[in-house]
Amino acid sequence: MHNHDDSQALLSSKEALHLAKWDEARLEELLSEMHGSELGELLLSCRKDSERQTLIEYIPDELLGDALLELPEGMQEDMLADFNSSEVEDVVEHLDSDDAADILQAVDKGVADEVIERLEPAERREIESLLYHDEESAGGMMQAELFKVRQDWSVEKVLQVLRRFGKEIENLNYVYVVDSDDLLVGVISLHALLFSEADVVVSQLAKADFPRALAGQDQEDVAHIFEKYDVLALPVVDEQGVLIGRITADDVIDVIQEEATEDMYRLAALSDDDDLAEPVGVTARRRGVWLAVNLLTAIAASVVIAQFEATIAQVVALAVLMPIVASMGGIAGTQTLTVIVRGIALGRVTFDNARRTLIKEVSVGLVSGVSFAVVIGTIASFWFPELGIRLGWIIAAAMLLNLFAAALAGAMIPLTLKRLNIDPALASGTILTTVTDVVGFFSFLGLATLFLI
Amino acid sequence: MHNHDDSQALLSSKEALHLAKWDEARLEELLSEMHGSELGELLLSCRKDSERQTLIEYIPDELLGDALLELPEGMQEDMLADFNSSEVEDVVEHLDSDDAADILQAVDKGVADEVIERLEPAERREIESLLYHDEESAGGMMQAELFKVRQDWSVEKVLQVLRRFGKEIENLNYVYVVDSDDLLVGVISLHALLFSEADVVVSQLAKADFPRALAGQDQEDVAHIFEKYDVLALPVVDEQGVLIGRITADDVIDVIQEEATEDMYRLAALSDDDDLAEPVGVTARRRGVWLAVNLLTAIAASVVIAQFEATIAQVVALAVLMPIVASMGGIAGTQTLTVIVRGIALGRVTFDNARRTLIKEVSVGLVSGVSFAVVIGTIASFWFPELGIRLGWIIAAAMLLNLFAAALAGAMIPLTLKRLNIDPALASGTILTTVTDVVGFFSFLGLATLFLI
Repeated sequence: MHNHDDSQALLSSKEALHLAKWDEARLEELLSEMHGSELGELLLSCRKDSERQTLIEYIPDELLGDALLELPEGMQEDMLADFNSSEVEDVVEHLDSDDAADILQAVDKGVADEVIERLEPAERREIESLLYHDEESAGGMMQAELFKVRQDWSVEKVLQVLRRFGKEIENLNYVYVVDSDDLLVGVISLHALLFSEADVVVSQLAKADFPRALAGQDQEDVAHIFEKYDVLALPVVDEQGVLIGRITADDVIDVIQEEATEDMYRLAALSDDDDLAEPVGVTARRRGVWLAVNLLTAIAASVVIAQFEATIAQVVALAVLMPIVASMGGIAGTQTLTVIVRGIALGRVTFDNARRTLIKEVSVGLVSGVSFAVVIGTIASFWFPELGIRLGWIIAAAMLLNLFAAALAGAMIPLTLKRLNIDPALASGTILTTVTDVVGFFSFLGLATLFLI
Repeated sequence: MHNHDDSQALLSSKEALHLAKWDEARLEELLSEMHGSELGELLLSCRKDSERQTLIEYIPDELLGDALLELPEGMQEDMLADFNSSEVEDVVEHLDSDDAADILQAVDKGVADEVIERLEPAERREIESLLYHDEESAGGMMQAELFKVRQDWSVEKVLQVLRRFGKEIENLNYVYVVDSDDLLVGVISLHALLFSEADVVVSQLAKADFPRALAGQDQEDVAHIFEKYDVLALPVVDEQGVLIGRITADDVIDVIQEEATEDMYRLAALSDDDDLAEPVGVTARRRGVWLAVNLLTAIAASVVIAQFEATIAQVVALAVLMPIVASMGGIAGTQTLTVIVRGIALGRVTFDNARRTLIKEVSVGLVSGVSFAVVIGTIASFWFPELGIRLGWIIAAAMLLNLFAAALAGAMIPLTLKRLNIDPALASGTILTTVTDVVGFFSFLGLATLFLI
């Protein structure tokens, strides 16, 4: 961040990306002084892929990996598609193992294999082990770089070894203590080590109850452990308890943002890959899939209305009022749905307390239902006095029914999806509004057909 | 986490909270072996405030603060309302300054003042400085505990002082280097210190360009800095550049979750304080406010429909089809809205690229609009053949208009709110569906009145 002003100019100036305007040497110098994430922003702000590709040629290898990792997955893959295996190698060799694995997952399988083959045996084993795990698991998040020591070493020996070999490990905060089979015995924070006498054996200092993640655990669970125990890094073990990696808090921050975006997008009928930077056609197609699903459900609701055409023809006021019942159900249901989906993501709603949560939400639905039934009943009676108080009773009953259905559906849909091991946010919103529209129109028009005409 | 099985039994057993069943001494022992966050979960799982209060009496002081901090704010305040100043003091003295400040903000002003008065002068200054800052700013997040050294010290001296005074500081990863006026000169990671020669002066090791947060910066900005630079702690400085505190990554994880929940809740017409654990009446009241707002906007849409009663009376098919136009607009608008709100939160949508984003969203709206206009026009023509192809053209035009309006509103509403310094998520959803309902009904019924009858 030297020459900060120039870098800022490059980042914010609208002319910045007419790369031809820049002196080549000056541009390379400027880019080399920027942070990987700033370079990522710069790449993102390019309007065309061709601009991005030109820019990439000027970014030094040691920063290119970090810059590429800032890009949304689709764009990352597009950029990397033009790289041959030796170019990928140049990028990968400057990265920590977890980031290297992410890049290798984004390139063609053939290219990745060539790169891996040329790695040194130790590095190769590390990368292969990382690639083996699911991207969204603790194993997929972890990095292989960590500092582990044998349990029978003294503090003095640990510090000696640390001074010799620890230098390359970024964010080294904890020393991991293992036994002769590499089983994780415990964890010592770096500063606890500093405050100890030189001749103490490390197994005495190691915290055996320090939290750990299993390689197969979902990344959301990993985030919960971090939140719960306020640690800055977590050791990852395999099923036997063998230490195989560590996850640092800064990686978890990215995961949490990602998971929150995913839930928000899914609740709003967006695909996870929807991205601001992608072309209009791609976005329109992605969103179109969900709009098409919604069209089908909207037509289903219209089919319900069509059953009551004769009723509406006699009392047009029903057509005026019916969207109110449906709309209130939609909003109330979305409230419940959102609370439950977020509660599941944060670990606050579990199968243990699901029944209690369901009862609460349905109770809230009944309380709101009664309240808004009174309000809308009164309004409708005054709005259409020629239809008398009977219209008020009918719309009140429909409102109560729909708010009850909304709460029930809002709670049951995500809990059921979760039980079926499907993401509780996925398609929840669409199913929910189908329920509230159908129940809303059917109950209101049905009751009107029975009691009004 | 010794006796892990017993603790688990306490946490998960449905009988666990019949506290009377437990032997008092055994219960106290079990509780004292649990982690603060586990105790928080236990408190949350109580069904009644009275159970919670009984349980609190058994929790040892050194864990009680951490447990209380896990509770949602409203419940936290309820629990603390019964504490007198010496009880609060017992809790606070076991906490880091940032957590202590949070507890003091949750108790009565009078009680807090009494506690603060009794603190030692140094601690008192720390706490008062933390309380002075806005809770959602860097100053409100930071803790005063950190390890700072003068720039002219040698590595040897720093390590000596660290061994004497650093022990109490949790998660100590960075040493902060200041000048004689306490201005932050730079940052050294603990392990960089370990790898240096004893006689090097620390100003030579300090990274001057290490990122820092300004006390007044919003917590969302702080989270961005962490995401961008992948650090584990950030120094906080005042306007003069004086080092006044630090923020660790584990606190940022909590903030990110909080901000994501807030945005999700606001998009779903929920208040930030909505909580699973609060009583039905409270939740019904909170949500009722938003439902009432929605009722008003739904009535506004109905007033629009009412203008076309005569048209609907002649062609009832219009009542059948009109919810489709409104519903598609609502979903498409929500897609755009969500992408923009999340983009603003993640720093991807800024005023600099707002125009480009707006153009893209409106273009997507037009592409979807044309596509779904063709689809719905065709369906409508086949569904109501007696009305001929004219109905198809009318609903197609209304669909195109409404998807265009949805994209425009979905992008403009959050950007405008942001420009007015209002949270872009707040009330966005309600304003949006009002727009799409009104435009949807008005354009469809209006065009039908002009061209169909």
